[in-house]
Amino acid sequence: MSVALEKIANEVLTNTEQSELGALHLAEFELHFGAILKNIEIEYCVFGGSDKPVVVIQGGISATRLVTDEIANTQGKKGWWSELVGKSKLIDLNHYRVVSINYIYGRASELIATQDQARAVKLVLEQLGVKQITAFIGSSYGGLVGQSFASLFPKSIKNLVCICCALRNSNKAIALRSIQRKILGLQHDTATELAIARSIAHLGYRGFDEIEARFDGKAKIEGQQVRFDVVDYLEHNAKKFVQRFDKEKYISLSTSIDTHDVSESQIQCEALFVAFDSDETVPLNLIKDSVKKLKRARLKIIETQYGHDGFLIEYKKLENAIRPFLENI
Amino acid sequence: MSVALEKIANEVLTNTEQSELGALHLAEFELHFGAILKNIEIEYCVFGGSDKPVVVIQGGISATRLVTDEIANTQGKKGWWSELVGKSKLIDLNHYRVVSINYIYGRASELIATQDQARAVKLVLEQLGVKQITAFIGSSYGGLVGQSFASLFPKSIKNLVCICCALRNSNKAIALRSIQRKILGLQHDTATELAIARSIAHLGYRGFDEIEARFDGKAKIEGQQVRFDVVDYLEHNAKKFVQRFDKEKYISLSTSIDTHDVSESQIQCEALFVAFDSDETVPLNLIKDSVKKLKRARLKIIETQYGHDGFLIEYKKLENAIRPFLENI
Repeated sequence: MSVALEKIANEVLTNTEQSELGALHLAEFELHFGAILKNIEIEYCVFGGSDKPVVVIQGGISATRLVTDEIANTQGKKGWWSELVGKSKLIDLNHYRVVSINYIYGRASELIATQDQARAVKLVLEQLGVKQITAFIGSSYGGLVGQSFASLFPKSIKNLVCICCALRNSNKAIALRSIQRKILGLQHDTATELAIARSIAHLGYRGFDEIEARFDGKAKIEGQQVRFDVVDYLEHNAKKFVQRFDKEKYISLSTSIDTHDVSESQIQCEALFVAFDSDETVPLNLIKDSVKKLKRARLKIIETQYGHDGFLIEYKKLENAIRPFLENI
Repeated sequence: MSVALEKIANEVLTNTEQSELGALHLAEFELHFGAILKNIEIEYCVFGGSDKPVVVIQGGISATRLVTDEIANTQGKKGWWSELVGKSKLIDLNHYRVVSINYIYGRASELIATQDQARAVKLVLEQLGVKQITAFIGSSYGGLVGQSFASLFPKSIKNLVCICCALRNSNKAIALRSIQRKILGLQHDTATELAIARSIAHLGYRGFDEIEARFDGKAKIEGQQVRFDVVDYLEHNAKKFVQRFDKEKYISLSTSIDTHDVSESQIQCEALFVAFDSDETVPLNLIKDSVKKLKRARLKIIETQYGHDGFLIEYKKLENAIRPFLENI
């Protein structure tokens, strides 16, 4: 790994809590699939003091390093997993030091592997003087990155928690993401393309029964215009998404999911896989197959109607599924 | 129904078999949702002699009136349901007279209801001097049209066979079709748009397990280019589809599925619903609910990995499911 490292000044925000937003500047970062990213920043966030065991937490492709309100609030934002990460919460900031990065991404000519995200996490940990982490907790794409971290740096990780992700993708999910990227490649109107692509993704993130129960399925016809409640719902959510996300990042990280490839024999740490029974993006059977292939993995199945998005909704059930595993660490 | 009827000369093709391709020309056709189609043709096909009981057969939105090879061959084409319709086949042309129409369709400002297709079928039957049909056999969209026919013309139908369709659509299917129409509305490049839209549809037509078993799910990476077998497969099929279908028809008939609305109390004939257990476009539970709501309906469930497309693949199983029903007619 011939990486030129150059630390830039960290913006220390709340030093009393030893929480900080920081960034590593890299002149060059050679990617797993051969391209080279130039002058990139690996933006990270650290929560809690350096005397505590470290937990890395990574979310889906649209998640950021702002995992908890502890520091997100100082940015006028909500932490995306604040219900589970904070003082006296499941990932208790009284006991753990939490690290998270913003995913790196490239252009179409710079394929990003989950291994690259794992190496970016590792560089941040080295920067922070952390040799070994207690746990890597990854949801969705973050779980794939966790798998790559565990396989690349087996001595640096003790426990892996993979939520709603398997060792490989389903063909259907691959196809739906490829279709999204085709839409984003139409070069028509970025906001419209991104909204359509996100709507396809959104449908896959939710459970079938939830979407059925939520709307009546009736066409609302006025004159020769027709609309549907479920479509209004998707459009509303897609508009919000377009405001906070960009097309290049979407294409890059969506491709990164689809190129995920990690050998099961390289993952040797203790692992907990958490699956949602109604997940259509990463179906339960794929996760069951993954757990069988690993030496030290176990599975917790959460019953929910919320599908893949369960990791952003079923907090109580996630806590019940993960707490016993963390207590045995 | 104030419809101006004007018969045009039928092109009689094989009079020995009393099979013919014909068309009704209508100066005006007032649609269920209020728009008026002007100067349209209802293109139909009749197979078999006029002394036999009549069966109407209608397929999915991309099907044509060319149901069987008996007449399709004279056009240099394959009948889309030749395995089940022909001499000594399930729908035996020695015993039945088969009628089918090409679906009518309109522009975005001319919403087409399944009731309109049912009335188009009825006009053709009147033209042929047929007062009552023995059975209406409809697959997918054709089944919705059959429901509308049964509800509009209860005295004109004795039996209804609905294959892979329910009384209402799932929200997910509605959303996926709306997304397809949004793509077709981008006004970018019709062939590309149609190919993307069809790929989304195609994925929903096939069973999850079949798509999983068929491809290895691995990214094929050359340089910074990535491709997937499942995507190649969808692209190949989408290209073939683009050659035989047009955008206006796709939008019109796709919207027609989504606006389907028929009161269950109006369907009073004997009905057989045939469902494929792996159908994602019209899930089994929706069909079960439909059968419960009808007075004289029964259900046959076909176990298959082929999903919604089972009606174009599982011929032997369809025969076993439908033959006992037809024998009791």
